[in-house]
Amino acid sequence: MLDVPAHSTALLAAKAKSGKTFDQIAEEINKPEVWTTALFFGQTRCDEETAKKIVAALGIESGEALVMGLAGKDEGSMGVEGMTTRGGTWDGPPQDPVLYRLYEVLVVYGFSYKALIHEKFGDGIMSAIDFRTSVTRKADPKGDRVVITLDGKFLNYSTPEVWGR
Amino acid sequence: MLDVPAHSTALLAAKAKSGKTFDQIAEEINKPEVWTTALFFGQTRCDEETAKKIVAALGIESGEALVMGLAGKDEGSMGVEGMTTRGGTWDGPPQDPVLYRLYEVLVVYGFSYKALIHEKFGDGIMSAIDFRTSVTRKADPKGDRVVITLDGKFLNYSTPEVWGR
Amino acid sequence: MLDVPAHSTALLAAKAKSGKTFDQIAEEINKPEVWTTALFFGQTRCDEETAKKIVAALGIESGEALVMGLAGKDEGSMGVEGMTTRGGTWDGPPQDPVLYRLYEVLVVYGFSYKALIHEKFGDGIMSAIDFRTSVTRKADPKGDRVVITLDGKFLNYSTPEVWGR
Amino acid sequence: MLDVPAHSTALLAAKAKSGKTFDQIAEEINKPEVWTTALFFGQTRCDEETAKKIVAALGIESGEALVMGLAGKDEGSMGVEGMTTRGGTWDGPPQDPVLYRLYEVLVVYGFSYKALIHEKFGDGIMSAIDFRTSVTRKADPKGDRVVITLDGKFLNYSTPEVWGR
Amino acid sequence: MLDVPAHSTALLAAKAKSGKTFDQIAEEINKPEVWTTALFFGQTRCDEETAKKIVAALGIESGEALVMGLAGKDEGSMGVEGMTTRGGTWDGPPQDPVLYRLYEVLVVYGFSYKALIHEKFGDGIMSAIDFRTSVTRKADPKGDRVVITLDGKFLNYSTPEVWGR
Amino acid sequence: MLDVPAHSTALLAAKAKSGKTFDQIAEEINKPEVWTTALFFGQTRCDEETAKKIVAALGIESGEALVMGLAGKDEGSMGVEGMTTRGGTWDGPPQDPVLYRLYEVLVVYGFSYKALIHEKFGDGIMSAIDFRTSVTRKADPKGDRVVITLDGKFLNYSTPEVWGR
Amino acid sequence: MLDVPAHSTALLAAKAKSGKTFDQIAEEINKPEVWTTALFFGQTRCDEETAKKIVAALGIESGEALVMGLAGKDEGSMGVEGMTTRGGTWDGPPQDPVLYRLYEVLVVYGFSYKALIHEKFGDGIMSAIDFRTSVTRKADPKGDRVVITLDGKFLNYSTPEVWGR
Amino acid sequence: MLDVPAHSTALLAAKAKSGKTFDQIAEEINKPEVWTTALFFGQTRCDEETAKKIVAALGIESGEALVMGLAGKDEGSMGVEGMTTRGGTWDGPPQDPVLYRLYEVLVVYGFSYKALIHEKFGDGIMSAIDFRTSVTRKADPKGDRVVITLDGKFLNYSTPEVWGR
Amino acid sequence: MLDVPAHSTALLAAKAKSGKTFDQIAEEINKPEVWTTALFFGQTRCDEETAKKIVAALGIESGEALVMGLAGKDEGSMGVEGMTTRGGTWDGPPQDPVLYRLYEVLVVYGFSYKALIHEKFGDGIMSAIDFRTSVTRKADPKGDRVVITLDGKFLNYSTPEVWGR
Amino acid sequence: MLDVPAHSTALLAAKAKSGKTFDQIAEEINKPEVWTTALFFGQTRCDEETAKKIVAALGIESGEALVMGLAGKDEGSMGVEGMTTRGGTWDGPPQDPVLYRLYEVLVVYGFSYKALIHEKFGDGIMSAIDFRTSVTRKADPKGDRVVITLDGKFLNYSTPEVWGR
Repeated sequence: MLDVPAHSTALLAAKAKSGKTFDQIAEEINKPEVWTTALFFGQTRCDEETAKKIVAALGIESGEALVMGLAGKDEGSMGVEGMTTRGGTWDGPPQDPVLYRLYEVLVVYGFSYKALIHEKFGDGIMSAIDFRTSVTRKADPKGDRVVITLDGKFLNYSTPEVWGR
Repeated sequence: MLDVPAHSTALLAAKAKSGKTFDQIAEEINKPEVWTTALFFGQTRCDEETAKKIVAALGIESGEALVMGLAGKDEGSMGVEGMTTRGGTWDGPPQDPVLYRLYEVLVVYGFSYKALIHEKFGDGIMSAIDFRTSVTRKADPKGDRVVITLDGKFLNYSTPEVWGR
Repeated sequence: MLDVPAHSTALLAAKAKSGKTFDQIAEEINKPEVWTTALFFGQTRCDEETAKKIVAALGIESGEALVMGLAGKDEGSMGVEGMTTRGGTWDGPPQDPVLYRLYEVLVVYGFSYKALIHEKFGDGIMSAIDFRTSVTRKADPKGDRVVITLDGKFLNYSTPEVWGR
Repeated sequence: MLDVPAHSTALLAAKAKSGKTFDQIAEEINKPEVWTTALFFGQTRCDEETAKKIVAALGIESGEALVMGLAGKDEGSMGVEGMTTRGGTWDGPPQDPVLYRLYEVLVVYGFSYKALIHEKFGDGIMSAIDFRTSVTRKADPKGDRVVITLDGKFLNYSTPEVWGR
Repeated sequence: MLDVPAHSTALLAAKAKSGKTFDQIAEEINKPEVWTTALFFGQTRCDEETAKKIVAALGIESGEALVMGLAGKDEGSMGVEGMTTRGGTWDGPPQDPVLYRLYEVLVVYGFSYKALIHEKFGDGIMSAIDFRTSVTRKADPKGDRVVITLDGKFLNYSTPEVWGR
Repeated sequence: MLDVPAHSTALLAAKAKSGKTFDQIAEEINKPEVWTTALFFGQTRCDEETAKKIVAALGIESGEALVMGLAGKDEGSMGVEGMTTRGGTWDGPPQDPVLYRLYEVLVVYGFSYKALIHEKFGDGIMSAIDFRTSVTRKADPKGDRVVITLDGKFLNYSTPEVWGR
Repeated sequence: MLDVPAHSTALLAAKAKSGKTFDQIAEEINKPEVWTTALFFGQTRCDEETAKKIVAALGIESGEALVMGLAGKDEGSMGVEGMTTRGGTWDGPPQDPVLYRLYEVLVVYGFSYKALIHEKFGDGIMSAIDFRTSVTRKADPKGDRVVITLDGKFLNYSTPEVWGR
Repeated sequence: MLDVPAHSTALLAAKAKSGKTFDQIAEEINKPEVWTTALFFGQTRCDEETAKKIVAALGIESGEALVMGLAGKDEGSMGVEGMTTRGGTWDGPPQDPVLYRLYEVLVVYGFSYKALIHEKFGDGIMSAIDFRTSVTRKADPKGDRVVITLDGKFLNYSTPEVWGR
Repeated sequence: MLDVPAHSTALLAAKAKSGKTFDQIAEEINKPEVWTTALFFGQTRCDEETAKKIVAALGIESGEALVMGLAGKDEGSMGVEGMTTRGGTWDGPPQDPVLYRLYEVLVVYGFSYKALIHEKFGDGIMSAIDFRTSVTRKADPKGDRVVITLDGKFLNYSTPEVWGR
Repeated sequence: MLDVPAHSTALLAAKAKSGKTFDQIAEEINKPEVWTTALFFGQTRCDEETAKKIVAALGIESGEALVMGLAGKDEGSMGVEGMTTRGGTWDGPPQDPVLYRLYEVLVVYGFSYKALIHEKFGDGIMSAIDFRTSVTRKADPKGDRVVITLDGKFLNYSTPEVWGR
């Protein structure tokens, strides 16, 4: 099972009961879909206002504890308001086939991505912090396709001039 | 160092000397850019005609052995023409920061991707085989961005009806 | 112990009490045997109708929670109806001797399978998604034999032409 | 790269040059296909007569060293004629996608196989020693299928009566 | 702590209280000593008659649940009567010194055993299934000795002739 | 031994022979000290002008190959001019005591750093890319001290507003 | 979740409720900030007087158990007053991005630190025991920066003369 | 391949050429069979006289280097005459099926051995140093059996009285 | 947290409350100090008389269960009176700095110890069973020193003559 | 084999040929025995004078390269004169029985050492840097004993007062 914070388990159960999709909830709270999903799995926190909207959208009564969890004001934030300890949903090569295929993409194409990032931008990385991502369904007569987009700011390695001497 | 087939090392050196980018080579051989890059890193093989074009594009003389390598007709194919043993460019969580950021995207958003694939398509996976991918540079006034697109066919788990009884 | 969802433990206990085999249950619900077994070990979910038949076949009273579990409508589905997180029954080389022998078959013959799949089909994989499998007992005067059949669709790696440029 | 004995590398190269498939070679030496393939990858040894036939089938001249390797009479047999040290073609979860799919079948269905073997035979294992296996291409209008059959003798755990007291 | 089934913990506690040794219990139920010990540590199951004798031998009252556990009719058998999931008492190189010495014997002499099995029998294994084993105390004036005997049927690798073509 | 690129080994040998410290070399090429040191250990590349200055500073004759290595124009750059594959100097918890102490600082204080970064900046990271670092010797009557400074730009996690919807 | 002692969880919750930062608490108890933070995460213990001040600063009533925990007088100290078992907040390469960046600094610059410590001091280490550390926010028009300072006494390897003969 | 000392590889090749079994060689040098086998695999060293007899038994001419290796007087002994660094023939759970079955015996029966050693002898271990072992072929109408005997002196944990105070 | 038996946790708590050191307790029960400490951490068991003295020394009332635990007569002994499963206080390279320094001594000097044991005694080991050890504080004007003494009987590898043929 | 620097291999071979023990060499160069042994295994470097004495003591002619290695002036010192990269002689739990027994001492008594160091000294460690160690043979009528002494300065964790605020 996933190592997610306590409020996630309760929220996910409420979501299932509500019959709403992540996309519908994201729309109701006017936030991006993957971000909203990641919020449910404990990979980020939100402000109290958003938390209240989520709890309302799921029709949860007396959801104060969940609001506290979502807003990073309960035990799961380790004493620092809003602090998220990310990770905890898989380890090593993942066993679940959906997760594994994503991992395999990196096994096969990861080094090519690195080489192309270098060729197109120079010495640096694609940020995973100044980052946004989406999952869409693309219709295709031969079978619809999953399209995942990773969109991260390019960050240059500091040149020695910037370090100063 | 990467565990890439023998012909990769020689090709990459020739490429560097030629001063051409993967994109330029891909254009000359009329193939997709990431696919061409992956070919250079030994993650796929190509037909002999393409192999010859690559060798020509890089200005390699007496490149017969490289053509054999690219076309999967040398030792690296383990006795089976065209067979690729994929992987070998990183292991465990990768130490290189460019590769690591890609890995971190899965650590943080992987389970969200899984959940959204399920919500949008049902029980199945994004294929990493019927798959194409690209890396592009998106201009942005706050700093240009790396955009990586994963585009794989959705594959449904066989229903019990399809298994037959 | 296995890391299986909560409903699995209860269902397996009820099955044992019922004295029925997986094959008998599979027959009653008119589903394939290995699929039905995998369902009991939490490796897939089913529709509500099938879930109800299973609960009935096992003579379980007030089995509503189990129906919810089997149909992927409880906590084990992580907020997404019908979503299965596969894996969790063994890790690393398995210690149990029955599981280990299956693993050993891959240790000894796995690369041969790969080579023959390539020779017979070209560059691609045997799908584990568009897949069905069976276990049968084959009578043999020297001692009956276990026959396991893996039957997966061959999936071709997308050619560069299909990627488009 | 694979950790295969020295004679394997040379044989596989000769095979590739010969243009013959494992199936054709297996037919010429009148042996089963997967067994012949496993022989090429160093997972078994054969008698000298078979070894000579293979060398002849591949059109190798002065192949004495290869015959010695195949027959388990060279260094790779660690001083014991015909002794094979099996394994060495992959480690941990395999990175190659073809090998991984086979591994994933065990991740998802392995415990179900165990349960069904127990139900159909009682307490024991499918032997991986008194074992034969095949890979075939099954035509299918929706796309041809890979069918792998594992066929191993059931071995009963010795009962305490057989242990004696 | 060991990962043993629930009934093991209770049985071992009852055994300790009874003051009987495994050998005494084995004698009372007329079963081999190591087999009986392995039964207590959850590495096998027994028939109901034997289970009842054990419960009686230990002077347990209302031991119905333990009989069910020993006979493989409770939760620990994962829904399949009598099924044992073996392993779970140590992992990796064991830390306990008694277990480690046994492990070290394999580190130092394991490959020699392999070579001698091959020389004396040909290509095959010592079965760990058609197997019996004992631990005895051998008096010795320089200090008594532990003598462990492993006695397993030799199993020949199937020859290609047996595979059929 | 370290897994550093080929030019590093030669450069380090030349440096040792020259009797110059990293600091002296850094001064001669007017670059920061840790950056220069990292360059010698293959953790970055430099422009050709700097490379030539280094080769001159070390009194190397016919150092063309080293200039190519430092400038990322030889095999170690995997076909992409100037590309560095970082890492390769230690793995797992390092065994060398100097490296281990640095690792131990993270074991003991790492989570505190995380909490304080969150408290002082909000949700984000210290960049290891827009980053500079130094090692200095601080005189102290009770024994001089090593002072290592990590100085990285704070990067905010993109807010959902920035993702857009 | 972190493997921190029982009193840490309660203290962190109280801190969150109090709305105070580690820095404010550190100031109230007149102790260094990182040290105070590490104390909250169970990486050190303090004297009883400090413990009482902390409990008071957080407005905790009946906080006797927490004082005992902070002062190393409860179960978490394993029977030895004030004894801390350090570690337990991450393992292997950490999955959390904030922790990972710190780890990556060692991956990329660790060996350079080692080389420079040797050049500046000779054969020895930076102590992680006679050690102090700080985290500060440095204003910067291009974006504020995290500055972490590690300040440890240099410890010389004992020379053979000191060993005596 | 095994990580055995250099002289082992040459000796094993000579043995294979000689056509003698380990048992025949053991008899010619009047030493135990498993010990002699272990000597060939580099798990022990012997005196010079025995080494010469072995070289003679294998009909090796100019075998001086091998005698030095066997007697622990060459590089493989790391500067200390006769010193053996044991291990190196397998790692983790072994992949070879013959070795694995021995390992599996410990997985299934190891803890039972521990319990019985304790019951029969008290607190201590079976020595793997004051130890002898044999492999024999036991005729059996149902199929001959491999019998491996481990015979090690019981060593008592020092009692506190023996420690002294 | 440590994986110690249940009675250890309670005893350590009682010890802390009593204010006595391990040395004082060891003196009261007239046993060696390290042995007594190891007993508290579950690494050995003692006779009932000693157990009662310990319980008395700690001023525990109704300490019957603890006496049973110390004397190896409760669940922690896995059904075999007095049996200890040693280990469980750390794993892999330990994260705690005090434990790590001990580990590091082996990393740096372990092979030297091996070489010197061989030179001084011949082929064999220092027993960790016929073993005693102490920790003392040695006054030193430059700072007091920790002196740990390992004192184990040398055990000779059985010579082939002792094996018999 | 050990991962020791190049000069170690040559020195150890010369030592073996010289017939001298580490103790004799240590005496000739007037250095401690374990330190001298560690020097031979590449775990430290020495001054040039000592290096020359060693080379002379071993009767090596034209030993200039070895002197450079011992004095840390060749490639093994990674460009920094006298720098040692310690470790490299074993990994994970060691397989060699002599090394393993030392490791086992830490498994069984390591936490007790930690507890006693705390009780006798307070919060801190035994230094492995300001450290000396010896191996001696202690005569004993019941069998001579190996006595290893670890003698390291106690280092106090810096108190918060020393950190300053």
